[in-house]
Amino acid sequence: MSGNEFDIISRYFSTQPVSRHDVDLGIGDDAALITVPENCQLVVTTDTLVAGVHFLAGANPEWVAHKALAANLSDLAAMGAMPAWCSLALTLPDSDEQWVASFCKGFYALAEYFHVQLVGGDTTKGPLSITITMQGYLPSGQALTRSGAKVGDWIYVTGELGDSATGLDFILGQREMSVAGAGEFVHRHYYRQPRVLAGQSLRGIASAALDISDGLVADLPHILSASGVGAVLEADCLPVSDALKALESDPVNAAKIALTSGEEYELCFTVPESHRGAVDTALSHCGTKAVCVGQVRSGKELAINWQGETVDWTLAGWDHFRSNE
Amino acid sequence: MSGNEFDIISRYFSTQPVSRHDVDLGIGDDAALITVPENCQLVVTTDTLVAGVHFLAGANPEWVAHKALAANLSDLAAMGAMPAWCSLALTLPDSDEQWVASFCKGFYALAEYFHVQLVGGDTTKGPLSITITMQGYLPSGQALTRSGAKVGDWIYVTGELGDSATGLDFILGQREMSVAGAGEFVHRHYYRQPRVLAGQSLRGIASAALDISDGLVADLPHILSASGVGAVLEADCLPVSDALKALESDPVNAAKIALTSGEEYELCFTVPESHRGAVDTALSHCGTKAVCVGQVRSGKELAINWQGETVDWTLAGWDHFRSNE
Repeated sequence: MSGNEFDIISRYFSTQPVSRHDVDLGIGDDAALITVPENCQLVVTTDTLVAGVHFLAGANPEWVAHKALAANLSDLAAMGAMPAWCSLALTLPDSDEQWVASFCKGFYALAEYFHVQLVGGDTTKGPLSITITMQGYLPSGQALTRSGAKVGDWIYVTGELGDSATGLDFILGQREMSVAGAGEFVHRHYYRQPRVLAGQSLRGIASAALDISDGLVADLPHILSASGVGAVLEADCLPVSDALKALESDPVNAAKIALTSGEEYELCFTVPESHRGAVDTALSHCGTKAVCVGQVRSGKELAINWQGETVDWTLAGWDHFRSNE
Repeated sequence: MSGNEFDIISRYFSTQPVSRHDVDLGIGDDAALITVPENCQLVVTTDTLVAGVHFLAGANPEWVAHKALAANLSDLAAMGAMPAWCSLALTLPDSDEQWVASFCKGFYALAEYFHVQLVGGDTTKGPLSITITMQGYLPSGQALTRSGAKVGDWIYVTGELGDSATGLDFILGQREMSVAGAGEFVHRHYYRQPRVLAGQSLRGIASAALDISDGLVADLPHILSASGVGAVLEADCLPVSDALKALESDPVNAAKIALTSGEEYELCFTVPESHRGAVDTALSHCGTKAVCVGQVRSGKELAINWQGETVDWTLAGWDHFRSNE
């Protein structure tokens, strides 16, 4: 860490639970020194969370930390990478030790789970925001990118979609917190589990992959555009939680939420017909479910079907993301 | 880049002048893919600049970009590393294309000079701030760390000290802008040149090193603490620019400014007696001057001499940084 940090806060980050053998020099010098495993590519991603934009300033710091770290882990998961090291740039309006202690609790719980070591960062005074840069690695040439989808490949998503956006609705007061299960949705919004093991197990199986951060209908077009293909989504096949089904009795509404729900940190990936059998085997080893929700087609369009018929649903954000040339 | 970016802004970052052979996949996927050179350690550093704290919100974006990137380059320089890749997290209050264009001009000019490729980042809406995480590499085991200083080693600094703080005084209105040369000091505050080549050339010569970001009397103690030693600084030996000498006719005042001036991004390093001859040769190859300003001693104290006599000067920030146990 360098300059401008608050001494008290820095102490929280100079001792930490994760200590990796490949970190030759961690926090405390001008930079960290790392030995990247041989025959591997380095994988790097960055995400920023700003108070008032990505979380409420009054949100539980432990949950905010989880969300911030999960966003980065999810990006590495989508590449099929093994997460390993991260830097944390934390900007705080004041030196609130209690806030930092709670933040660290959430941060280190998830970092420890995935054996990610904090190797550096910068603590500055200013409007509350969190930027994490995470590095991982994978065997050279085995990354899951966005550009490998081919016409005829099947489209899968892991887990269930829709709970994150529903949780956000509760957080923002757009749904009544008195509804049964509201607290659970809020927790799910912050506590998505990044699909790190699933991503790694899909190396050599998936032809393309990404994580769902802006919503399936917003993110899938990134694969289509990078691969030069179109697709059809079978909206009635989208995996939706029992809780969301109970909340939204109209399955069309639930499907619309599932299509647009952002910050899900589930993986969306494409699989050639010849590898379909391998998907279930690979994912069962890491306890992740994935379901087929569509197919890659020629052209550029992303069509949405409901019970076999193409529909023209109005979806939040849809128009904005549709024209991804 | 993922989620929440402004489309117009992202375009500025998706095309860039630097294209490295070791970047296998740059901006545009969930993460970047990099092949780190063989037998090298990865070196990682992060710095955040917040508007109103590290620069004025109305400052020339081109200069702000230079300063932000220079801070990271300087950290890598202090390790003796070769800078190579970086991520940029840019938080902007609104989508101000002109600001971004100017920022990019400064950013890419310096990135191109040091052949650093932007491989990812995140553009978000919020209070203006910039976080850069930079990666570089160096031959394994050859890093310049803070912990290698030994009693008897000589203490050097590169370049000249004091102009950065003086420039900041002008920026903050603490000095009259009507003074001759004021604009030049302001420019020097933003346009410090990180000592990248000097750092690399000191591998195998310096026993410890860091870059001066908080002021020499604030930063040198980091070396002393990490190495378990004390030191004496000969304040009358500190390199001061002719411009500062002209501005501050009292050499004691100029020396005090040189001791405390932060964001200089000059290197402070220690050299064993046996390697002193190698310093000039190594640095002359990269056009950098360095002067001996003191010596490492036993104990924990940092003493300051003026013309051979120990002095007890009151220095801004001094007390705060002195007790670095």
